[in-house]
Amino acid sequence: MAVLGIDIGGTKIAAGVVDADARVLETAVVPTRACEGYATSYAQLKSVIDKLLRDGVTAIGICAPGPLNPKTGVVINPPNLPGWVNIPLAEQISKEFQLPCRVENDANAAGLAEWRFGAARGYSTVFYVTVSTGIGTGIILDGKIHHGKNGQAGEGGHVTIDYRSSSICGCGLPGCIEALASGPAIARRAGMPPEEVGRAAACGDPRAIEMLDETALMLGAWLGSAISLLDPDIIVIGGGVAQIGEPLFSRLRRITPERSINQFAAETPIVPAALGAQVGILGAACTVL
Amino acid sequence: MAVLGIDIGGTKIAAGVVDADARVLETAVVPTRACEGYATSYAQLKSVIDKLLRDGVTAIGICAPGPLNPKTGVVINPPNLPGWVNIPLAEQISKEFQLPCRVENDANAAGLAEWRFGAARGYSTVFYVTVSTGIGTGIILDGKIHHGKNGQAGEGGHVTIDYRSSSICGCGLPGCIEALASGPAIARRAGMPPEEVGRAAACGDPRAIEMLDETALMLGAWLGSAISLLDPDIIVIGGGVAQIGEPLFSRLRRITPERSINQFAAETPIVPAALGAQVGILGAACTVL
Repeated sequence: MAVLGIDIGGTKIAAGVVDADARVLETAVVPTRACEGYATSYAQLKSVIDKLLRDGVTAIGICAPGPLNPKTGVVINPPNLPGWVNIPLAEQISKEFQLPCRVENDANAAGLAEWRFGAARGYSTVFYVTVSTGIGTGIILDGKIHHGKNGQAGEGGHVTIDYRSSSICGCGLPGCIEALASGPAIARRAGMPPEEVGRAAACGDPRAIEMLDETALMLGAWLGSAISLLDPDIIVIGGGVAQIGEPLFSRLRRITPERSINQFAAETPIVPAALGAQVGILGAACTVL
Repeated sequence: MAVLGIDIGGTKIAAGVVDADARVLETAVVPTRACEGYATSYAQLKSVIDKLLRDGVTAIGICAPGPLNPKTGVVINPPNLPGWVNIPLAEQISKEFQLPCRVENDANAAGLAEWRFGAARGYSTVFYVTVSTGIGTGIILDGKIHHGKNGQAGEGGHVTIDYRSSSICGCGLPGCIEALASGPAIARRAGMPPEEVGRAAACGDPRAIEMLDETALMLGAWLGSAISLLDPDIIVIGGGVAQIGEPLFSRLRRITPERSINQFAAETPIVPAALGAQVGILGAACTVL
């Protein structure tokens, strides 16, 4: 028994045949021709599915950038997929390939995969965070994604930590953590890529150390607030910025509990994501496994 | 069938006999002699229970200010109840009166009561807020309080909306919404009690209008973030500051969706709590009903 897991991103569509033990048996990747609009990128999606479909595949799971409604499988209008406006994607794919299909927000799906196969295995309340071009989050409660009323829950990247900030987020709001501490925000302040900031800080570069301290203070205030509100069993951090590794994680582990009212916050593990580059494929697969 | 619901506060202990239809059949209230320490206030609690206990009472529910652990029934060290340090309250009361007993955080209990009997009846994801001397919150998911790992979830009053703020909260953290928009914070900025701010604003007082706008901006940024993260079906607001009424609620209903990435935020009802002064007794009762 296996399923297809498909990760539709703004730059590539990555798909895989995944079995119940999280083994990725075969993959296919195509660069998304997103700017050519819906018809082109939807045709790309179908051809990737055609390529991987085989006997024994029982369902198709898809993750994509939000906003989308995982309850109905409708893609609403993701900025990274121009022309995908109110597309009933789960229904269309299900009809086309005569298989059950689910569509999930990419950060939610990644969080679910980390809970099922990765760093958050065995934990009850999981706060999953991905820090890369944007900041995404997923709340996993007892192995289920918390979707909320409209399926839009988990947009923690657009929680404000500075409601009067002059830094305006891509979403239009001031002071979202994404506007302040995502990869591009770090690169802009530091004048170098985030991974480079980590290396330079480890070598004692004072400017890089200052940048890292500032980023960790913002992320720590935000994670501390998340602990105050949700009291998670574990916080898992993935995405490109997590590649900074220990220079970032050691700071977050120190600052986050200082920024939470929760007296047990220091005991909340803050760990790197475990699933690496295939988290999207695995996450999409998890929605139907 | 009935239960006792007991609301232990810093100023009074309010208790009632509550039936399954949320009818409060009899009540007892004593001013808490909190400053005399644990032995005195615990004795007060027991005498209130003695007074109300009767045939047909099947359980005792207690709510108290945090921090406490509702999973174990241990009161940890609430600032408003000096001397109550690591008290296994549920166990003690249960032994003493030979009845099942639960202990719950007061804002969580109030949220549960609003879900079961009040403004949030029939809703799946409920974000309950009380704005008074402090700001408390409770997250109710499908009729259950979200407790988190250590039973400390729901401390939304200590989520930061201004991580570099010079306003330091009672909890010691900068920029908590409680430090900025609780009753005392409003009174301090306005030079008048919060209820008075609402009346003065309704009469066109420019200073009061400015205060109300500023408070609504802060609460709106905070609630907008909560919608981004949790996508609740409804937000219920109780506590003394909610008594400002329409001048506050109309502003919150306008500003909150402007401060959320959730495209459906404007459809999330923001409503006053329905249960009034007995919410504590009813909330405590709900934990064992």
